[in-house]
Amino acid sequence: MSILIKNILIDSLRKDILIREGLISSIEDEISFEADYILNGSGKAVVPSFVNAHTHSAMTLFRGYADDMHLHDWLENKIWPMEANLTEVDVYWGTRLACIEMIKSGTTHFNDMYWHYNGTARAVMDSGLYAHLSSAFIDLGDDITSNKQIAEQIEIFRQKEIYNPNVTFSLGVHSLYTVSESGLLWARDFANEHSLKIHMHLSETKKEVEEWINSTGLRPVEYLAGKNMLGPHLIAAHVNWVTDEEIQLLADHDVGVVHCPTSNMKLASGVFPYQRLNDAGIRIGLATDGAASNNNLDMLDEMKIAALLQKSVTGDPTKLSADEVFHMGTEGSASLLDLNMGRIGVGKSADMILVDLRNIHLIPNHHLIANLVYSAHSGCIDTTIARGKILMENGVVEGEKEVIEQFSRCVERLIKN
Amino acid sequence: MSILIKNILIDSLRKDILIREGLISSIEDEISFEADYILNGSGKAVVPSFVNAHTHSAMTLFRGYADDMHLHDWLENKIWPMEANLTEVDVYWGTRLACIEMIKSGTTHFNDMYWHYNGTARAVMDSGLYAHLSSAFIDLGDDITSNKQIAEQIEIFRQKEIYNPNVTFSLGVHSLYTVSESGLLWARDFANEHSLKIHMHLSETKKEVEEWINSTGLRPVEYLAGKNMLGPHLIAAHVNWVTDEEIQLLADHDVGVVHCPTSNMKLASGVFPYQRLNDAGIRIGLATDGAASNNNLDMLDEMKIAALLQKSVTGDPTKLSADEVFHMGTEGSASLLDLNMGRIGVGKSADMILVDLRNIHLIPNHHLIANLVYSAHSGCIDTTIARGKILMENGVVEGEKEVIEQFSRCVERLIKN
Repeated sequence: MSILIKNILIDSLRKDILIREGLISSIEDEISFEADYILNGSGKAVVPSFVNAHTHSAMTLFRGYADDMHLHDWLENKIWPMEANLTEVDVYWGTRLACIEMIKSGTTHFNDMYWHYNGTARAVMDSGLYAHLSSAFIDLGDDITSNKQIAEQIEIFRQKEIYNPNVTFSLGVHSLYTVSESGLLWARDFANEHSLKIHMHLSETKKEVEEWINSTGLRPVEYLAGKNMLGPHLIAAHVNWVTDEEIQLLADHDVGVVHCPTSNMKLASGVFPYQRLNDAGIRIGLATDGAASNNNLDMLDEMKIAALLQKSVTGDPTKLSADEVFHMGTEGSASLLDLNMGRIGVGKSADMILVDLRNIHLIPNHHLIANLVYSAHSGCIDTTIARGKILMENGVVEGEKEVIEQFSRCVERLIKN
Repeated sequence: MSILIKNILIDSLRKDILIREGLISSIEDEISFEADYILNGSGKAVVPSFVNAHTHSAMTLFRGYADDMHLHDWLENKIWPMEANLTEVDVYWGTRLACIEMIKSGTTHFNDMYWHYNGTARAVMDSGLYAHLSSAFIDLGDDITSNKQIAEQIEIFRQKEIYNPNVTFSLGVHSLYTVSESGLLWARDFANEHSLKIHMHLSETKKEVEEWINSTGLRPVEYLAGKNMLGPHLIAAHVNWVTDEEIQLLADHDVGVVHCPTSNMKLASGVFPYQRLNDAGIRIGLATDGAASNNNLDMLDEMKIAALLQKSVTGDPTKLSADEVFHMGTEGSASLLDLNMGRIGVGKSADMILVDLRNIHLIPNHHLIANLVYSAHSGCIDTTIARGKILMENGVVEGEKEVIEQFSRCVERLIKN
């Protein structure tokens, strides 16, 4: 499959782009090639698609179900009781809806952690998106649960090829405070043995950090360092409450860190120390977290909120510029997952979006990236291409209506229970 | 002109709504009436349209022109030089574009302050929107400028009826630090004499407040109190840096205050003390500020950012709930301008939007207002009605293409100069 995009704005110049076998094979002023498909780029610009570096995609099921609550009240009295009733079918349709939302808002790869791995994985395959998926390993210190979850992870790992190439298996370790030490060590060794990413929540709230220090005498990152769990394969989400010493440890071991500004603000979990982490040279990606604590999966929203937050907390409007935060949501996130995407260039993966320059939010076009970050909403996105395949054209994603119907049935059933 | 909306979701119930002569004349389970126009509400819900309580609408011309800069650098080196070249024609087309953006994002009334009043006023008329307009009175202490601006304001005031009923004249006093004492006192007396609103920026940055104290020995609100300028006709935008004593003065005089969260965060001007102002019983509206410091005019964006900001700065996720911030952008803002809008009820002005419940961001519909505030973007808005007149149906605003063409010509000319 080859696609030729004619006359598209790229970095303020009109070019042709040729896509072959999932890669950008050439970018020239004019390309003559008998492509399988031609996209007319006039009136449009191309930018890389987004990588959502931390989410729980099936939580679209709970969008707007419980807001404006304290984190623990929210989890214990609203989210966990509903999650206890979830079936793989619910997770499948929840993720299908999430995938449509991501395609529409320009995300072509995401990093997920949730229950019913196979439901999520099938949904990713069926939607044509790409993802790193992990199940949510939580044993709360219980040996029987722990062994069961380990057995499940191994089982999924063994069958992981059936979701190729869309899904990359990674190890989900929910957090220090929800997984036993033996569980953590198993995950560390299994990840080392099979060169897997480990995806975990880390130092999200002040409360969890204080409790961890009380019970172990160590700060969370120090604890992980002591267990030899830090490394470039670790993807740590949130990371709001870290000392300079912990930041140095993260930097020394090249740990990847994910910023989730909306979720952090909405749940009042804490303020991401972007400047300190960035100054230490840490790789930083951007993410929406799940739709229950955001409440959407829109990376353009996330970029704006990330930029505003840093300016506001530092008192310095020059911090986290539009270009910098756009990079965070593209190449920044991609680097955490070792992806060859996040930039429009020859040899890069053909993951990109075409935006409609006639959309009122992109007018005038003094600075496209600033317009996308500060002004646009995802309705500006006309076309989404993942690994050289068109998943949306003219704002239309195939199968949306059926997905909404099936999804709505799942929600109805969940509410009744 | 009468409109009958059939079978529309209002507060979780399906109803018919009859609009006659700009007002909601009846809401019943089923209404039989030979209306001039029928709107099919199935698959949609109705909520009040928004009131943007502080903006500079023609600044759409500068959207994305200069971001991520310090306020004074931004003003002095970017915005003011461009504004020096502005003509009334530019302001007309800049405002026309802004009006289309507002119609598309569900705003039907706004409170504006800008140069070339007549350009703005004609644009409001031609777009079918409603606004309180003021010119930007800035004399920087210079007598000649001051007298010229006063003469201009009187001239506009005398001719204000030509923009009826769309435009309500109000007195723009840019700020304490840009207007002479004699200018302020003139505005006070002229407003009293003619029962006009006064629209001003107040205590936006720490720097301006400190300088004011240095030069007068008084805090800004104390100074205004001493000059008898406080009252329910005063609409004060930003109000980030106020003491408890100043808040009490604002409350005692029933001053209306406008929250501009995105602008405050983007320019790092300060944090709006929502809780303290609200606890004092002060009327609070919501606003986008101009598109140069936001960079859009989207009140749904503004609601989300306002809610996230309060949760984050207080560390309490229950603060400024979805319902509360939705109220701020509807009835809250409306109350500052004495408007009979902001709620769907019999006898209220027929200012409303119809949202598409099949839009993915509104699915599932556990809580519509939470979905609108936290998940939706303005693409969810299908129909916008201002004072009983349909300004957008099925997402289409008449004349958009021509406005974009003319607007783009103005921008080209401004950039060349």
